[in-house]
Amino acid sequence: MVKLHGFQTLTSVDEALKAWLFAWSTKESQHDMLFLADVYGRILAEDIVAMDNLPCFDRSAMDGYAVRYKDTIDASQSNTVKFTVVETDEVAVGQAKQVWTGNPLPKGADAVAMLENTVHEDSVLKIHNALTPYINVIRHGEDVRKGQLVAKKGTRLNPYNIGLAAALGYSVLKVYQKPIIAIIATGNEIVAVGTQADKHQIFDSNKFILSAMCQELGAETIDFGIVRDNIEEISEKISQALKIADALITTGGTSVGGLDLVPDAVNRVGKPGVIVHGIALRPAMPTGVAVLNGKPVMILSGNPVASLIGFEVFGRPAVCKLLGLNEPEYRLPLKATLTRKVSGVLGRKTYVRVLVKLRMGELIVEPVSAKGHSAISTMTQSNGYVVIPENCEGLREGETVLVQMFGNIGVDDVNVS
Amino acid sequence: MVKLHGFQTLTSVDEALKAWLFAWSTKESQHDMLFLADVYGRILAEDIVAMDNLPCFDRSAMDGYAVRYKDTIDASQSNTVKFTVVETDEVAVGQAKQVWTGNPLPKGADAVAMLENTVHEDSVLKIHNALTPYINVIRHGEDVRKGQLVAKKGTRLNPYNIGLAAALGYSVLKVYQKPIIAIIATGNEIVAVGTQADKHQIFDSNKFILSAMCQELGAETIDFGIVRDNIEEISEKISQALKIADALITTGGTSVGGLDLVPDAVNRVGKPGVIVHGIALRPAMPTGVAVLNGKPVMILSGNPVASLIGFEVFGRPAVCKLLGLNEPEYRLPLKATLTRKVSGVLGRKTYVRVLVKLRMGELIVEPVSAKGHSAISTMTQSNGYVVIPENCEGLREGETVLVQMFGNIGVDDVNVS
Repeated sequence: MVKLHGFQTLTSVDEALKAWLFAWSTKESQHDMLFLADVYGRILAEDIVAMDNLPCFDRSAMDGYAVRYKDTIDASQSNTVKFTVVETDEVAVGQAKQVWTGNPLPKGADAVAMLENTVHEDSVLKIHNALTPYINVIRHGEDVRKGQLVAKKGTRLNPYNIGLAAALGYSVLKVYQKPIIAIIATGNEIVAVGTQADKHQIFDSNKFILSAMCQELGAETIDFGIVRDNIEEISEKISQALKIADALITTGGTSVGGLDLVPDAVNRVGKPGVIVHGIALRPAMPTGVAVLNGKPVMILSGNPVASLIGFEVFGRPAVCKLLGLNEPEYRLPLKATLTRKVSGVLGRKTYVRVLVKLRMGELIVEPVSAKGHSAISTMTQSNGYVVIPENCEGLREGETVLVQMFGNIGVDDVNVS
Repeated sequence: MVKLHGFQTLTSVDEALKAWLFAWSTKESQHDMLFLADVYGRILAEDIVAMDNLPCFDRSAMDGYAVRYKDTIDASQSNTVKFTVVETDEVAVGQAKQVWTGNPLPKGADAVAMLENTVHEDSVLKIHNALTPYINVIRHGEDVRKGQLVAKKGTRLNPYNIGLAAALGYSVLKVYQKPIIAIIATGNEIVAVGTQADKHQIFDSNKFILSAMCQELGAETIDFGIVRDNIEEISEKISQALKIADALITTGGTSVGGLDLVPDAVNRVGKPGVIVHGIALRPAMPTGVAVLNGKPVMILSGNPVASLIGFEVFGRPAVCKLLGLNEPEYRLPLKATLTRKVSGVLGRKTYVRVLVKLRMGELIVEPVSAKGHSAISTMTQSNGYVVIPENCEGLREGETVLVQMFGNIGVDDVNVS
């Protein structure tokens, strides 16, 4: 807890996040029944259970000949064993049937001799090595057993679990409807893109950043426009937005001229209102989190970088919860070596924007400098965050750090194969 | 080059990919003009150039007081300098104006004293440390200079470059239309999901995996159904698909019972037809790449894992090219320690499915075993590939390897903050 102008105290990120995420719950949301071709990225609203074994028959894992393994017991380099090649769906003692990868094993067969280890002349096959039971055979149920849980409710559907559902014969899956998140920008100086801005006015950019970050996670957003720095107007707009949306994000008005316009407006609208305002987080200290009508409200800074980092820290886990995910999705953590020291501030968790590069097979991290926290170009120059914990003054040059990646590593720097 | 049944020779991945990607070019594709709220994930079809400085005025980086820095030169802990606080839009010598973070600097001012370093009583402000020019000020053009190229044509739009475009006043961006990729499944044993499968039939799962992998990159797909193992039917379907689509993927029929049905069908449709068939790639050796009507054709295995790895290696860079991206997008490469040795095959590039976990702050890699290559469940248990190069027999336990990540690291294993 740090004493600060405009805030009684600052609350730690972990404390604020925990308190807020416990203060609202996700309604068992509506679901859609979607054809498999349309479920990519959606969240499962049911368990996927194997209705059958996969594969549902024994199949050859190789091109070759299906035989009874016992018939090959005496085979060796010096002792060739001969088989009669048949075309039937069953192999008897001393018989072999040609199979290609994926073919069902003929009845009676329990092993496959690889093509390259056999000699086939007319209807006679010569095998000169002993086979073991079910060698080169994929057993029924080897991939998935009937009744097995293959994907849990609350899992995000990726190409591979969609493929597994298809292989099991599912054509339609039950997925959660996308949560709808309203976004309100506040500020007398803010104008909408596409309009003419006077000098000293600035375009509303936060809304598009936050909307894209919501879309990235799979949520939908509704733009509730721009509101002046007026507590009545802000309250009114918040009430309207929460009639429609599952959650609300505001930007700006968290410490305007020393006033907490949006937090005060939120508290006017209902209970419990603001849970925490003022976070020990750099650069998103004026962030607030609230609950109205059982719905989560994020009160973000008007400063673009502070607002998106506030969303990264609070919005991301909240949206994951709204989506119906079992667990929050984290950015991929990547270990790399710092090329320059970075400073933290004791008592605050600091998000440092960095650029990770792959140079001569080594992953290196360059901090991206910025004088102010508002420079959105620092985000387009970065591909990750290094997070400096509250109890740490900074990180040394040459130190190995974990980077939370939000962007790609450029092709000039990558040689991954 | 390795001699092999069914293939005269195997071509290396790099050689095949290079030959194929050079054999077709992307038409300057149609573009859409989209509102900023709808461009997330799309590819820029124009450069974004700053129409103005960002910010377009000098603004305060802090809560505090704007002054002329020269007036503070004599200030020190032992020598307080006094200012008259004014409300005007200009500060003269000896005057100060209160500003909040983001406020425009009043005319005449060239520095901001931080609130916590001042004492304000009535209309008198006391400053007891000397300021330097433009300290705590974000200069106009400091984020972006007028005329600066902020995002190149061929860049994928993420939340941050969308935000930068908004901050510069763009409301609409020109993006490429999504390429359309046709997918044809072949195989007598294949049935569509949603229908009744007999014993020994298998559901078409490849199509959904490949479609989702295309969607993941931002392409659209059209399902051209399932075709029997008949060269005329396959040729006919390929011709139909290429009338509509920008590219084609086939699965199956690349080495059926020793026959190359799909490659032969492709060569019947037109020139140049198959560029390479048979790749030194494990587990996707029967992959082929072709060009018809100037459009890329991917001939993938009927085996789910081989088909998706064939797509990973050939389809991914091809789709990136079709999208209009400047550079192929690679999976994030992550360095981690192998917990078990993995074997390669000399002369072939091997894709090993692995599960990366974060354990006690260390990233570790567990290979995911599979007897056959068809077990799609190995993909749902993995989150990355380790690629063993052609000239390498395998990787040792304890070795640090680069992993190409395609999935998240589970929450149980992550503590990234």
